[in-house]
Amino acid sequence: MLKQQRVVIENVSPQLQGGAFFIKRVVGEEVRVFADVFGDGHDVIQVEVLIKHEKSKQFSAVRMVHLGEDVFESAFTVEKQGFYDYKIQGWIDHPLNWQHGIIAKLNDGQKVSSELLDGVQYLKYLLKTVPAKSKRYLERAIYIFGDETYYKEAIGVATSEHLHHLFLEFPQRTLANTSKTYQVYVDRKKASFSTWYEFFPRSASLEHGKHGTFNDCERLLPRVAEMGFDVLYFPPIHPIGEVNRKGKNNATKANEGDSGVPWAIGSKKGGHKSIHPELGTEAEFRELVAKAKKMGIEIAMDLAFQAAPDHPYITEHPEWFRKRPDGTIQYAENPPKKYQDIVNFYFESPAYKALWTELLNVTLHWVKCGVTIFRVDNPHTKPYFFWNWLIAEVKKKHPDVLFLAEAFSRPKVMQQLAKQGFSQSYTYFTWRVSKDDLIEYVTELTQSEMKEYYRPNFWPNTPDINPYHLQGANDAMHLARYALAATLCGNLGIYGPVFEYLVSDALPAREEYLNSEKYEVKHWDWTKENKLTYVIGLINAIRKEHPSLQQTNNIRFCALENENLIAYHKWDDNRSDETLIIINLDSHHVQTGMVQLPMDVLGMYHGQSIQLYDLITNNGYIWNSEWNYVEISPSLPFHIFHIRK
Amino acid sequence: MLKQQRVVIENVSPQLQGGAFFIKRVVGEEVRVFADVFGDGHDVIQVEVLIKHEKSKQFSAVRMVHLGEDVFESAFTVEKQGFYDYKIQGWIDHPLNWQHGIIAKLNDGQKVSSELLDGVQYLKYLLKTVPAKSKRYLERAIYIFGDETYYKEAIGVATSEHLHHLFLEFPQRTLANTSKTYQVYVDRKKASFSTWYEFFPRSASLEHGKHGTFNDCERLLPRVAEMGFDVLYFPPIHPIGEVNRKGKNNATKANEGDSGVPWAIGSKKGGHKSIHPELGTEAEFRELVAKAKKMGIEIAMDLAFQAAPDHPYITEHPEWFRKRPDGTIQYAENPPKKYQDIVNFYFESPAYKALWTELLNVTLHWVKCGVTIFRVDNPHTKPYFFWNWLIAEVKKKHPDVLFLAEAFSRPKVMQQLAKQGFSQSYTYFTWRVSKDDLIEYVTELTQSEMKEYYRPNFWPNTPDINPYHLQGANDAMHLARYALAATLCGNLGIYGPVFEYLVSDALPAREEYLNSEKYEVKHWDWTKENKLTYVIGLINAIRKEHPSLQQTNNIRFCALENENLIAYHKWDDNRSDETLIIINLDSHHVQTGMVQLPMDVLGMYHGQSIQLYDLITNNGYIWNSEWNYVEISPSLPFHIFHIRK
Repeated sequence: MLKQQRVVIENVSPQLQGGAFFIKRVVGEEVRVFADVFGDGHDVIQVEVLIKHEKSKQFSAVRMVHLGEDVFESAFTVEKQGFYDYKIQGWIDHPLNWQHGIIAKLNDGQKVSSELLDGVQYLKYLLKTVPAKSKRYLERAIYIFGDETYYKEAIGVATSEHLHHLFLEFPQRTLANTSKTYQVYVDRKKASFSTWYEFFPRSASLEHGKHGTFNDCERLLPRVAEMGFDVLYFPPIHPIGEVNRKGKNNATKANEGDSGVPWAIGSKKGGHKSIHPELGTEAEFRELVAKAKKMGIEIAMDLAFQAAPDHPYITEHPEWFRKRPDGTIQYAENPPKKYQDIVNFYFESPAYKALWTELLNVTLHWVKCGVTIFRVDNPHTKPYFFWNWLIAEVKKKHPDVLFLAEAFSRPKVMQQLAKQGFSQSYTYFTWRVSKDDLIEYVTELTQSEMKEYYRPNFWPNTPDINPYHLQGANDAMHLARYALAATLCGNLGIYGPVFEYLVSDALPAREEYLNSEKYEVKHWDWTKENKLTYVIGLINAIRKEHPSLQQTNNIRFCALENENLIAYHKWDDNRSDETLIIINLDSHHVQTGMVQLPMDVLGMYHGQSIQLYDLITNNGYIWNSEWNYVEISPSLPFHIFHIRK
Repeated sequence: MLKQQRVVIENVSPQLQGGAFFIKRVVGEEVRVFADVFGDGHDVIQVEVLIKHEKSKQFSAVRMVHLGEDVFESAFTVEKQGFYDYKIQGWIDHPLNWQHGIIAKLNDGQKVSSELLDGVQYLKYLLKTVPAKSKRYLERAIYIFGDETYYKEAIGVATSEHLHHLFLEFPQRTLANTSKTYQVYVDRKKASFSTWYEFFPRSASLEHGKHGTFNDCERLLPRVAEMGFDVLYFPPIHPIGEVNRKGKNNATKANEGDSGVPWAIGSKKGGHKSIHPELGTEAEFRELVAKAKKMGIEIAMDLAFQAAPDHPYITEHPEWFRKRPDGTIQYAENPPKKYQDIVNFYFESPAYKALWTELLNVTLHWVKCGVTIFRVDNPHTKPYFFWNWLIAEVKKKHPDVLFLAEAFSRPKVMQQLAKQGFSQSYTYFTWRVSKDDLIEYVTELTQSEMKEYYRPNFWPNTPDINPYHLQGANDAMHLARYALAATLCGNLGIYGPVFEYLVSDALPAREEYLNSEKYEVKHWDWTKENKLTYVIGLINAIRKEHPSLQQTNNIRFCALENENLIAYHKWDDNRSDETLIIINLDSHHVQTGMVQLPMDVLGMYHGQSIQLYDLITNNGYIWNSEWNYVEISPSLPFHIFHIRK
């Protein structure tokens, strides 16, 4: 194929696997674009990035700047939700090249009459495109370029900044070449800044021994809002299977009155579109969702695509399950492990289209009820391409809807779910405890390709994970873990009551709760407030005030020789806000050390002083040197400083 | 789109930019393939690489091995010239997964009668595909899987290695997913192992002051062959322009009798398809090419796509040149530099198709004369896509033809030419002199993505480059540079006579030869042989014997604390040959040091002794430890050891 273009465009970034997946941003964020662009020979080239929102008809262009070594850079800010296309365009710029040549020849003492004549073609092109006010200037230039009498004036014009800018502004783009088109998907800000509180609605009753209801939950909304949480996540609220129901502490046989596992969905009382009768009605749920929204809280619903053995689907749609030759349906298992109260959908069923469509309908049903956030249970045990399709279908009409992937699996599996469209993902933060491990993990999340598509959500604990370091731990440990999650990551969440109230009894030698709420209704004294309640509230309030803490990727760890102290500097894209966080990881002893300010990132010269304002205690400090003494006690195991230069 | 596959395939390597370019190999080399492959859930997956030569109709499959972390690996050897397609295929392997589950359950003490029944479907599938000798075994298995009486025998069969291997060998490939298809282009071996000698045929005469001819060149062939060179490269042999001809030492005006620059092609005596009359006729050239071939030498021709101002094209095809408004054609320039004896083709001409076709015809004309290697002059000043097209067109019918890109430009420019199809490329070796610089550069060439497409050709000097370190240098420096090129790189070349005879007078403070042969006919006493002639011949003979030196990428540098001594270990893909090279970079002093053997690459245990056989001196050494003393004198500044374990 004869392809006449002369410019090569390569190595466009950011992009994922040659555009196989879109990158992600939230409204107001920046996309900083780089590309290798070069022509043959020595001619001047120009490069631009072309950007178009999915609802726009035309691309707009932003010129790129040459950084050296054939690398060009530019940036654009995404203002609207939805997809943007972006691509790179480059061309040999003949007018600029002509001007560059004339200047070089004049500097060399050469006569340029022939070159001036040659330039008339570029001026004539400009004449057709420039606004009226520049036309007279160009007409004069064309006239004098052809008349030796005006040679001096002509070379003045030919080499002028004014002409240079006209060439820049109205390029001919001769034989322009373009890169592939890449996509960035823009979410609402909540996708990268959210603060989650999880409780089981069935444990929300004021009365001991009574099953909680949506009305009980409603009563708790002000408490959640006052603490500064903006997402309230409920485990599944559907009817719980009665066949093979699990008892307390995961006993294979339930006793009379055992309430079962909310994730074992479906019984004669209904399935994924129904409400567990003891919690209330769908109308009450809608009302709860609406009231929460008024207080700035979104209710996140659990999407657990699996069925109890007595789920209505099993008789209504046996083709959605895999039958064995003896007619039985295999319960979920990972041999030799068994999950007798759960049956998996058969995603490879010949009837898969109907099954997938039904699961989409389940999701849309709850969207219609006002749900805008889903926490998806075990997405890594369902096909990746199913999620790709489902999420895309939902977001086409409901771009506000967000999906959090609950996969604690191998790195590539978790990454793949994020690439396929999940808005947020759980992480390994739950098990990253030492300073080195924290720095290594956060560096991977924020400095590798993952920063383009993997939005982490840091959870110190979940109903499934009672990590060893929290078992029997004091409030210093809990506060440090909360402060880490809240300042290292834009998104965080806690499985609330047990965290707040330091309930951390575990099964022996396992990271699981003893008497786990997964298997029984619990009672919490929600009127209780303690130091954790108070400090968590303060931290959440600080996050709301400080854009540097509402994002994840702009972070720089600081040198600090004490392995029990971790320090980092954070800032937002606009650098309207900068914070310095220092946390004591030792929950029993005062720790001291010298922290080094990142002078280059701060843009500071040596000797310059900065003010640090402690956002918890309201104390102010003036630091006059690069290295500064810090001392942190477990009683308040962290500083969050606002930096004022 | 509902895509039901469950396996994800990503990060396939090697490949260039998502398959935008092919990777390269020579016949007999290996392609070692890696990919990230994983399914959802916990099911067993299988992965294979599918390979097909362009002339085959069917893909053949090679199963890949799981290395851990979801990475799979395999390798295939390319046996034929031309394109191979390769792609990765993966699937959830239900039969293997079934067997894996049964074994896990039995180990857990569970009863598996229902599972045995379930397995019958997989046996029935096998029955349809296995050869006759396995059918009876399967029929029996199907029978006993359904009959409790044979439970013991049945679980024996179900968990057997034999059944496992049948499942492996005859997979169902249910819902298999495939990656994109990538390509590898396979050249004949010469593309990665060649030894070049360059001289100007016009300087080949025995008589002082007489213009050399093809007959003179013929006389020199045995000398070139005996020295072990297998490519003889001639600067252009076409009529030289008479208008604006350059004089000696690049003088703007030639004197009467000056012979001009061979790269200023074309005069009334003909153009790119003609022979400079003083050299001989086309028939004589064909004869020379044929005679050389008989001695194992290929004549490499220069492709310099540019014209002297009196080239016939200029009057016959004025549309192939860019005219200025005053009717003149601009000579080549890079302001303020001027190349008055050369006019560039106008690749952007509206008549570009005819121009490109003519340049292809020029190339094919010489292919018809027997030429199989082209050294392309300044390819980076012509469009990249032009080369892509021209090289592809030539190789479609003449896959043996090789192209060496003579671009000494920016890294990305040189890389791009290689990606677009050049078989070999000049390099920065000419200016890499210190140990650190050599190691850094060779590491980039052999360990980065470049190893997949950029075949380096190391030249210690060229007619255009008389590097500072060779100016006035002794034979130790010349030998070290030759030994480096010959052992670091599969391809190397020298601008012969000046290198052999240490002719290195330079223009003041420039890396250019004084009285350069580019501007005048020279006389060399070709009967002369010296130490360099002799040692170069020895080195070339060693290269012919040792496959480890016929390739570039398998190399490991050894620790050696002396910055004047460089040491490295080389091996071929099959590990049929291993060498250890140590070179003294100091051309004036004996250097000593302790070299560390790369025990891991050598596959050696501590205390194991190896024999080193010096291929120049024929001395043998036994080394008993990891660290070994070496001492090298400038009089023979290198060791090439054959390693015998």
